[in-house]
Amino acid sequence: MTRRSVFFISDGTGITAETLGHSLLSQFDTVEFEEQTLPYVDSAEKALAAVQAINERAHIDEARPIVIDTIIAPELRSILRTANAFRLDVFDAFVGSLEQELSQHSANTVGKSHAIVSESTYGTRIDAVHFALDNDDGARTRHYDRADLILIGVSRSGKTPTSIYMALQFGIHVANYPLTEEDLVDMNLPAVLRPFKKKLFGLTIEPQRLAAIRHQRKPDSRYATLRQCEQEIRAATAIYNREGIHYVDSTHLSIEEISTKILAMMGLKRRLV
Amino acid sequence: MTRRSVFFISDGTGITAETLGHSLLSQFDTVEFEEQTLPYVDSAEKALAAVQAINERAHIDEARPIVIDTIIAPELRSILRTANAFRLDVFDAFVGSLEQELSQHSANTVGKSHAIVSESTYGTRIDAVHFALDNDDGARTRHYDRADLILIGVSRSGKTPTSIYMALQFGIHVANYPLTEEDLVDMNLPAVLRPFKKKLFGLTIEPQRLAAIRHQRKPDSRYATLRQCEQEIRAATAIYNREGIHYVDSTHLSIEEISTKILAMMGLKRRLV
Repeated sequence: MTRRSVFFISDGTGITAETLGHSLLSQFDTVEFEEQTLPYVDSAEKALAAVQAINERAHIDEARPIVIDTIIAPELRSILRTANAFRLDVFDAFVGSLEQELSQHSANTVGKSHAIVSESTYGTRIDAVHFALDNDDGARTRHYDRADLILIGVSRSGKTPTSIYMALQFGIHVANYPLTEEDLVDMNLPAVLRPFKKKLFGLTIEPQRLAAIRHQRKPDSRYATLRQCEQEIRAATAIYNREGIHYVDSTHLSIEEISTKILAMMGLKRRLV
Repeated sequence: MTRRSVFFISDGTGITAETLGHSLLSQFDTVEFEEQTLPYVDSAEKALAAVQAINERAHIDEARPIVIDTIIAPELRSILRTANAFRLDVFDAFVGSLEQELSQHSANTVGKSHAIVSESTYGTRIDAVHFALDNDDGARTRHYDRADLILIGVSRSGKTPTSIYMALQFGIHVANYPLTEEDLVDMNLPAVLRPFKKKLFGLTIEPQRLAAIRHQRKPDSRYATLRQCEQEIRAATAIYNREGIHYVDSTHLSIEEISTKILAMMGLKRRLV
């Protein structure tokens, strides 16, 4: 397998360069990429240090590193251009043509995109995170009227990480409620959820995978047996189907995929842009 | 202010298109962008529906929408190309030159970048989220030996959202511990934290902002008075300085910025790529 070093360089967090970079590099699965991020490169000194790091890497690797950068300041871009690298320049590729289309000059402001937007946006996000935490795992049910979404599923089907991700990224209020063995035995939707049926979304997962996850948590417990997992999943899915509750199988999906699918399937509007 | 509609279109979650798009559009602050994401456009039917939505928007706006897309399949790209839009084609811009540099053809696989990577990566991430939740707000202190990082700060300085974000995005184990009034009165680092001094990182925040946040939570309480906030922040900062604990002021930073700064300042390695 070929190996290539990759630098994501940014005057801000580096998130845009990383996200785009992963997306592009995932197209080349016969190359092994060794990635590093250099965030907050916002001065000539730091840009020169980045060039030095790149050049050292080029020397060690005997191949020029790949640089994906979102630096905006022209003077820093000139410095980066001197590195011994194959450089994908995100702003060069797009900002010029956008300026033309919008008949506007770009602001050339450093590190804007993941900077705090406004106090109200920040507040929305923090509120959503605290809502998700306070209403995690059925801990409290009295605020379901304020929820945008209530995730349901058996233990360890992915409810908590999904709730938190959706709160952080979309700013929506997500509660989650575990379907327990008792709920599943009589195959009834818990009474506390009934009034909020339109807000419910189910998670399911392949029994083998669930058993493996549970086994890590409580080795050799009944809770982690394949038989127990199969029964619970079968009962949960039966409830979803009978009650007309949308659901997805989380087994082969990332948290990002689960979350964006839920947003689309439930027709939910984000509270954050 | 000019208004322009924007479509982020993807065969996967849409996260790459959104992230890049926000980054580019944030450069044009005299234009008001009305954004929408069309994720999972992975069939000719869905691509045609996207074209229709774009064309309707163009008609209503009397200006062609801006389309930022990361679609990979050639046949879907041809369909999108027929829309009445100004289109930034991410893969066109970069994949060809990467293919040349790497002497490899791209895999042309749909929606790869935010798909689940492997069960072990997934496990690392979920473990980190549960670690952050279980060790939130000083709830438990007996697992600090397993923590990569322990965030400290006064109530509502941003510890919890930062812990969770770092767990989700970097897969690292982050605990957080609140500096309470008692800790602050004698200006001593709590004894339980002493053995883990190298893992500590402090958050601080401007007293005015803190008072506003606390006021939302507990209106008109002593907890939310400016005087109380000033005292707590002054004492916390004095502890950080005396003990040589790194810290940042979270007031004007987004969660992404706080998190990436901490990672850099503490020299922490991500457990997720």
